[in-house]
Amino acid sequence: MFTNLYSHLLMSSTFVANDRSYQAPDKPILAICADGWDPEYVDDALERVLMPCLAQALADGGTYTLGRAQVPTFTNPNNVTIVTGVSAAQNGIAGNHYRTADGGEVQVTDPSFLRATTIHAAALEAGIGVLCVTAKDKLRQLLATGGVPAFSAEKAHEQQLPDGTPVIEAMGAENPDIYDWRLSPYTIDMAVTLAPRFDARIVYASLTDFVQHSAAPGEPMADDFYRAVDISIGRALDAGFVLGLAADHGMRPKAAPDGSPNVRFLDDALEAAGVTGAHTLCPITDPYVVHHAALGSLAWVHLDDLSQLGHARSVIAALPGIEGVLDRFAAADAFELPADRIGDLIVLADAGTVIGKSAAAHDLSALHGTLRSHGGLHERSVPLIISHRLREGALLGRDLRNRDLHDLLLNQLA
Amino acid sequence: MFTNLYSHLLMSSTFVANDRSYQAPDKPILAICADGWDPEYVDDALERVLMPCLAQALADGGTYTLGRAQVPTFTNPNNVTIVTGVSAAQNGIAGNHYRTADGGEVQVTDPSFLRATTIHAAALEAGIGVLCVTAKDKLRQLLATGGVPAFSAEKAHEQQLPDGTPVIEAMGAENPDIYDWRLSPYTIDMAVTLAPRFDARIVYASLTDFVQHSAAPGEPMADDFYRAVDISIGRALDAGFVLGLAADHGMRPKAAPDGSPNVRFLDDALEAAGVTGAHTLCPITDPYVVHHAALGSLAWVHLDDLSQLGHARSVIAALPGIEGVLDRFAAADAFELPADRIGDLIVLADAGTVIGKSAAAHDLSALHGTLRSHGGLHERSVPLIISHRLREGALLGRDLRNRDLHDLLLNQLA
Repeated sequence: MFTNLYSHLLMSSTFVANDRSYQAPDKPILAICADGWDPEYVDDALERVLMPCLAQALADGGTYTLGRAQVPTFTNPNNVTIVTGVSAAQNGIAGNHYRTADGGEVQVTDPSFLRATTIHAAALEAGIGVLCVTAKDKLRQLLATGGVPAFSAEKAHEQQLPDGTPVIEAMGAENPDIYDWRLSPYTIDMAVTLAPRFDARIVYASLTDFVQHSAAPGEPMADDFYRAVDISIGRALDAGFVLGLAADHGMRPKAAPDGSPNVRFLDDALEAAGVTGAHTLCPITDPYVVHHAALGSLAWVHLDDLSQLGHARSVIAALPGIEGVLDRFAAADAFELPADRIGDLIVLADAGTVIGKSAAAHDLSALHGTLRSHGGLHERSVPLIISHRLREGALLGRDLRNRDLHDLLLNQLA
Repeated sequence: MFTNLYSHLLMSSTFVANDRSYQAPDKPILAICADGWDPEYVDDALERVLMPCLAQALADGGTYTLGRAQVPTFTNPNNVTIVTGVSAAQNGIAGNHYRTADGGEVQVTDPSFLRATTIHAAALEAGIGVLCVTAKDKLRQLLATGGVPAFSAEKAHEQQLPDGTPVIEAMGAENPDIYDWRLSPYTIDMAVTLAPRFDARIVYASLTDFVQHSAAPGEPMADDFYRAVDISIGRALDAGFVLGLAADHGMRPKAAPDGSPNVRFLDDALEAAGVTGAHTLCPITDPYVVHHAALGSLAWVHLDDLSQLGHARSVIAALPGIEGVLDRFAAADAFELPADRIGDLIVLADAGTVIGKSAAAHDLSALHGTLRSHGGLHERSVPLIISHRLREGALLGRDLRNRDLHDLLLNQLA
């Protein structure tokens, strides 16, 4: 992992991951990937004093600012950009879902997809204790790369600590269901509770956005959620952690005036226009259909026959609610994506629109309430929060991204 | 210009421009905007030893790396991103040309278009001597903002120093014509010769890309040009300057197999498809038509009637050689552009294609040889060169842009 180029940095207090250097922390740090925390939730929760612990940390010198997320604004690409510190072009993870060369579709859960090390794996190799805890089990494998201890709240009832203790016994509480708003606070509590077992000083907790898909800021479930998360944040601070938080993406309503999802089905539109062999892939796709029915505001289109590219582009560009169509190379350049992991066309929907494959392929009946989703450019602005004071000038002139979270926590504290 | 926020930085040795801080230089610096220097020219010139002074500086610890340019990859947006240190979204300059609210078209030459200070104006206000010299006069006014002394090689015969000395008398040589390959080396020589007259320690020289539009790497005029520029670079180094160089954009051939320009005329295509009130604006447009006949690989389309947006998008997306069409907001987000200074649609042509308004609007007969041009994503990768050693780790983990040139020269030297 280390080349001679960085040998001068190999002091015990510094390690390098993907060409970025990080300092070993004086105090343990907890980085939280706050899934789907559109800035509107944070602003609302602070304004209505739902998060007194967070508010106190900010009043005492903490920072709340905005940064930009990786496009597509989906969960896996953004978790991986945060834990690697580099763009999808470098780390190789461009979606939750991926179309293989033979036309199959697979979940991007296997670490073999990774083209970069994680900050946690690099820290571990440098002798610093680490721990990753995810709400959804789908992410656990990616984060466990390099021997990093990784657990999920979703499957906590099946997991054990190295000494054989069941995780839920260590927690002293059963893990909530995947569609329970208590799962994310439980995830933070797991990170704080289990960290001492691994002597972990660089800890990562990745939440789930079921709440944000289901409830707008100010709705009862969102209020319950942010109050409970704040209690968990308070526990982490009391336990001595410096806390950092970045969202993977924002979240917006994507419904037509009648409440139905405002969706364009690309395969249907392409087929009706005589384009054959087009395969829309929704990179939001994951096993958790109740959230979003695999409908997000960005999709890839793969074509069996590239001579139909211009025709396909034209058909899609004519659809209302589409705000951009880019060829593979142009999209890779514009959004720092790995060109071989995206489609022949990349389609962007506007703020209020989502993209599907075909009417037959999405089970809209599974949706829980009015559709709220993400994936495009309108969910790119995300909160970045650091509980402790940053050194003067730490943010001066920076084009902040959520992938800078570990730089802020490890290199920029006062 | 300075807010209280930065008052702690107001030591005599540091100044702030647009939220980035810069240190006053120990040795005078010369930043060169190397117009149209695709990395291929630099690689070729170094390989064939056309630039021995530059090669020696690199051998002695200098740096040659690549960075990314501002999209659209045109001259004014990239000169302004280099001299402000921030993106077009912040500095307001998105093209050489601009469509006004009343449908007129104007050159972006007036400083009133600037929404950011220049590094030179900020340095001057901090008491540091500065000087800007441009090859083309069109840029001079923008760079003179804030009282910065600014001259152009093109109009040197009309300009005088503050003591009344004619510039060409101070130079001891007449200024070459705008279509003479000697104009760029003369520009560098002007910067070096005039700097002492202004006690200038932060000096900027902006070249012209007439040569790169006309000759590929290895062609005789290109060879003459790079040899002559190297002599001027050697003079600058001998005069004690630390030299930095960044290109504003690359350059690629844009011709069909028969040698004619490979161009798509958008207004013609839109009119033929029944879209009315569409106005294509080529932001490459400037007074120097022999270079490129106002044909580049990116254009805006303004629509009188936004209800035709989807139709227009579809018509354009169907054209061969088009690799992307984005709505105003999506383009502003994707490429850090000021949304009110671009079109309703932003059109990207592929590596070998350019975009025009209509066949009638461009005088292709004015073109000097086979068309070479720029403006899109394929001219975004540009050389960044620093003549002196950078401090260890200065480039570690950075997503370098050409707008970082002054940061490298003022903050990152060893």
